[in-house]
Amino acid sequence: MRLVIIGTGNVATVLSHAAQQAGHDIVQVYGRDAAKAALLAASRGAAPVSDVAQISREADLYLIAVSDGAVAAVAAELKLGNKLVVHTAGSVSKDVLKICSANYGVLYPLQSLRAEMYGIPDIPLLIDANTPDDLALLQDIAATISSQVQVAGDEQRLQLHVAAVIVSNFTNHLYALAEQYCRQSGLDFHMLQPLISEVADRIRSASPKDLQTGPAIRNDLNTISKHLELLQQFPQLQQLYSALTNSIQSMYKK
Amino acid sequence: MRLVIIGTGNVATVLSHAAQQAGHDIVQVYGRDAAKAALLAASRGAAPVSDVAQISREADLYLIAVSDGAVAAVAAELKLGNKLVVHTAGSVSKDVLKICSANYGVLYPLQSLRAEMYGIPDIPLLIDANTPDDLALLQDIAATISSQVQVAGDEQRLQLHVAAVIVSNFTNHLYALAEQYCRQSGLDFHMLQPLISEVADRIRSASPKDLQTGPAIRNDLNTISKHLELLQQFPQLQQLYSALTNSIQSMYKK
Repeated sequence: MRLVIIGTGNVATVLSHAAQQAGHDIVQVYGRDAAKAALLAASRGAAPVSDVAQISREADLYLIAVSDGAVAAVAAELKLGNKLVVHTAGSVSKDVLKICSANYGVLYPLQSLRAEMYGIPDIPLLIDANTPDDLALLQDIAATISSQVQVAGDEQRLQLHVAAVIVSNFTNHLYALAEQYCRQSGLDFHMLQPLISEVADRIRSASPKDLQTGPAIRNDLNTISKHLELLQQFPQLQQLYSALTNSIQSMYKK
Repeated sequence: MRLVIIGTGNVATVLSHAAQQAGHDIVQVYGRDAAKAALLAASRGAAPVSDVAQISREADLYLIAVSDGAVAAVAAELKLGNKLVVHTAGSVSKDVLKICSANYGVLYPLQSLRAEMYGIPDIPLLIDANTPDDLALLQDIAATISSQVQVAGDEQRLQLHVAAVIVSNFTNHLYALAEQYCRQSGLDFHMLQPLISEVADRIRSASPKDLQTGPAIRNDLNTISKHLELLQQFPQLQQLYSALTNSIQSMYKK
């Protein structure tokens, strides 16, 4: 398939890479910033475009991989007739694409993608389209890129997006706070890596609810108060410590 | 070395297993609950004991692997002369062991250990002792069990314990909340596993602070408000969503 990539950020970079590895042809990369478009286009063997009027009408799939807040504005600039166009945003309805084509949908990667990724990680894809034919076509394309493809409508996709924020953005933030705390306390954050990996990996085979450990679930008030005292110089972390401890205790109270 | 294990829970089970695999001899397993002591002792080729008076005086190392809140009470019942005794608690001073022996210390596993673990995970060990000779001995023993052994005094150990709670207990709780949310919304939580693993693994090579993604760091208020609306039926999760979003925004504001 011939693809036009619209966007030059993390998602555009990784998805265009994955599509290319799957044998698809990236014909153009569009980006408002000509330098960025040139850079990504060069590494995909594609033509760079920074004027919407020059976007080819000959491709099979147009992938709008821009930030959630920018999808609607980008779509409003495109006139693609009945070419299949999809966006990659978790929180945006497919219907914002109605303005640029009669055939549209979504290809949402349920992964945290970063341009500098060394390899292509396992990327579950959630797909949606406005006609059954488009959905079938998108299913075929998605299956060449990922082994995990599921159909999800706007509502379901938004719900999975919330869940993704919780398990990835918030989790990463806890790692970042712990790293900051370790550095300021003269401790080696990397000592925690085996623990971090263990906790993330073992939920493959058991429910995290059944795997909870620590002072909160044991209601070990003595340890909790020692911890809160130690965090007095870290008020942000201290507040989150209390909020998460309370949340654990309320989950297991019932 | 000949070890006596005091305790029958998760840490006692996994550390005695790891010690046995490293070639040490588990001579006794003590537990107040005779049935539990018998069960763990049987799988270690050790004698079960449920009366403190019957604890052997002939072992080289006594490992008190009970919950943080119980260490002091257990130590008060033991009379071990000058035998080396250690506890495994992150938040308890080594000095609570003074009452039972002239030679004491700590062997704290910086891992979340569960009895039903299939294999022995990578277990960083933090050690401490009241004399340089005991510390050297403990270092030798610890090195047979783990490739990552570091000396950490009471204060440092408590600080790493706080950090461990943040990156493991709190993270696991976020997984548990997301799983609950997915189930109640008819979504497949396991779709999120690649994302969870990716976020946990990539901090091996980069700082989590530099890897933050999501609506909070983008200050994408539109998506954040959609998410909060979706979480209206989940007040606990909604509150944590706000607290963590605010925390992310304040980390990157400066």
